[in-house]
Amino acid sequence: MNAEIIAVGTELLLGQIDDTNATFISRQLSEAGINVYFRQTAGDNEERLKNVIQTASERSDIVILTGGLGPTRDDLTRDALASFTGLPLKADEESLEKLKVFFESRGRELTEFNKKQALTLEGADVLPNDEGLACGSFLEHQGKKFLLLPGPPREMRTMFTQYALPKLRSGMEEQQIQSEVLRFYEIGESLLTEKLDDLIENQTNPTIAPLASEGEVALRLTVRGPSKETNEEMLYELKQKIFAEVGDYCYGEGDSQIEQVTAELLREQEKSISAAESLTGGMFADTMTSFSGASMIFPGGIVCYSNEAKIQTLGISEKLLEEHGAVSAECAEAMADGCRRVFSSDYGISFTGAAGPDPLEGYEPGQMFIGIATPEKTVSHFVNIGGSRNRIRTYAVKQGLYLLFQELRNKKGG
Amino acid sequence: MNAEIIAVGTELLLGQIDDTNATFISRQLSEAGINVYFRQTAGDNEERLKNVIQTASERSDIVILTGGLGPTRDDLTRDALASFTGLPLKADEESLEKLKVFFESRGRELTEFNKKQALTLEGADVLPNDEGLACGSFLEHQGKKFLLLPGPPREMRTMFTQYALPKLRSGMEEQQIQSEVLRFYEIGESLLTEKLDDLIENQTNPTIAPLASEGEVALRLTVRGPSKETNEEMLYELKQKIFAEVGDYCYGEGDSQIEQVTAELLREQEKSISAAESLTGGMFADTMTSFSGASMIFPGGIVCYSNEAKIQTLGISEKLLEEHGAVSAECAEAMADGCRRVFSSDYGISFTGAAGPDPLEGYEPGQMFIGIATPEKTVSHFVNIGGSRNRIRTYAVKQGLYLLFQELRNKKGG
Repeated sequence: MNAEIIAVGTELLLGQIDDTNATFISRQLSEAGINVYFRQTAGDNEERLKNVIQTASERSDIVILTGGLGPTRDDLTRDALASFTGLPLKADEESLEKLKVFFESRGRELTEFNKKQALTLEGADVLPNDEGLACGSFLEHQGKKFLLLPGPPREMRTMFTQYALPKLRSGMEEQQIQSEVLRFYEIGESLLTEKLDDLIENQTNPTIAPLASEGEVALRLTVRGPSKETNEEMLYELKQKIFAEVGDYCYGEGDSQIEQVTAELLREQEKSISAAESLTGGMFADTMTSFSGASMIFPGGIVCYSNEAKIQTLGISEKLLEEHGAVSAECAEAMADGCRRVFSSDYGISFTGAAGPDPLEGYEPGQMFIGIATPEKTVSHFVNIGGSRNRIRTYAVKQGLYLLFQELRNKKGG
Repeated sequence: MNAEIIAVGTELLLGQIDDTNATFISRQLSEAGINVYFRQTAGDNEERLKNVIQTASERSDIVILTGGLGPTRDDLTRDALASFTGLPLKADEESLEKLKVFFESRGRELTEFNKKQALTLEGADVLPNDEGLACGSFLEHQGKKFLLLPGPPREMRTMFTQYALPKLRSGMEEQQIQSEVLRFYEIGESLLTEKLDDLIENQTNPTIAPLASEGEVALRLTVRGPSKETNEEMLYELKQKIFAEVGDYCYGEGDSQIEQVTAELLREQEKSISAAESLTGGMFADTMTSFSGASMIFPGGIVCYSNEAKIQTLGISEKLLEEHGAVSAECAEAMADGCRRVFSSDYGISFTGAAGPDPLEGYEPGQMFIGIATPEKTVSHFVNIGGSRNRIRTYAVKQGLYLLFQELRNKKGG
């Protein structure tokens, strides 16, 4: 069974945005064992949309359309599929009701344009949209499967993984596909893949694919086999080989990134952490509160961008700032101590340095001190990160989380 | 004249990398006044590559292939085009010489596989590769134009802009293209496009395209004409028509999003703002410090996730929390007042509410109070945002920025 993805949107053809939806769906299908041989992109034009649907349905078993389900005149994907299949459009009552409630709660009128978002094709199964208003559709027609998915990535991703993929999978040959992710820190992607070169090159089942993301390196291991037990055994063996080479750098497995793994360690140990952020400007706090249940381990943080703020909110002494400057090991340690005291938390973490683009107090962009205060001691680490302001801030938060993780893991081990 | 882009590479279809090449070429063509109506992606398979070239050449005047020109067995794009057109492949002497010199200088043998990189089609113009070894080709065949470009983005970009685009442009009418972006707040995409329905529908030059992004609505106006002056006049006229309908909702033009526009107003008025964040957990502070120069207008913020933190760091009274709860207009206002006092800033902003997934103090996820303290008064706004935890937090920050923007704009006007 093979699938073809059609991304819809004139903004794609104008080069205004990257087509990350096609990448996401491709990867999901690949992991599910469904081949993608072709992808197409088309603009918001009904005739041309029909043309690409025609082409796709001639060469692929599954045709997945993403984008063009919204309320505007430009949103024509439903109409194109209706016209291609000859099936009429009809309102899905549940989706329509959701629209009514939404508009009523905001005191706005539900216009005809907006009602379009509840339309589906006759005979299609509706795919709920948990993140938005436009419903999706799953249609089987003349031996082919068609999917209509919204364009906004958040809406598309949830709908695809929650509702569309299970439908595509049902009836597939029983091949078990399992995949695991190993997460690494303090090792670059090139060094990691170099160390595992032989394994990556010669491994066909399970496969090893490096995953790149902001300040993280991960490997996805994917195995296909007749039974769950065999698969797990094969994955286990491969993992042992990987750990033998680079096990020291692995901080976790699965979907949990370093912030969740660290939060989990704090929860297990019933400890809390607070933050004092200059360089990272609130990004560490934002990261720690991005998942639910944060209040148990993160009472709060202070963003102290100015020196006055450092003095007033954290009790840093003017003398320290004069003698050592705000970008210093001494200041980082005093900030970590300060927030630990203010929030009565078990740990305190701090970030001070030059985010760029200009140097700060003689430090180049990317140079920084990260302070960690624990019940026993307060230390600081000098870190140097390259790249843009945003990259420096993002990687700084990751680096702080790695340091905290090591601290907590040592506790656990001891 | 219209072009179709074909990105070649199995790694694309496996979702291992985003197809940034297609985005780059799309934008370059759009700016050159060449329409892109379709794009395709195919893997490293000669038969399927012939299939996509066939499809493309039936519906497009220019077919641009990128990727698959390298030295490995998997690099089959040249072979596919040769097979499709029936033209033989032949070595380009200059490219071959370059390969010989390259391998000699490294003391390595030039293998037959590597020689492939110097192949072009009979009758095609060779496009030099200033950044790598595989040469490109430009072919006119049976009224269609074909381009072969390498896949590595750096090689492709240089070859495309330096050598390919001039060939496509030669013989084209000289047309100027200009584009502007208008940014809106407190108006959904559907309401905006509804109000401008007639304009969007009947406008062909300039065109009006809605751009969707997280919690923002924008319109891109693009004009094509013989001279810059005429273009600017046409854009001006269109903008007047748009402002007449929805001018009240427009907060800015160009690349600056609401955070930059608000920061600019603060800078102009020489005012500062601090933040007290519960619901948004540092995301507002992070947004305000994401660009350089933030320290002038944003001394700092407090993330007060727990009630104890609200009491200790902002001086909120226990009585207030007991009587009204942490999710209340009263608490939002006290938080805004509190941070304004702690950081000695001109303005203070606060966020308190339920981020989800669970309700908080009887409030559903997405329900929140945003407090604004100014030198004259302190107010709060009840806001209700739908969606996931991350969406609620992201939109809350935008909403806070809109409220602050209005406050500052009124000051400016008065």
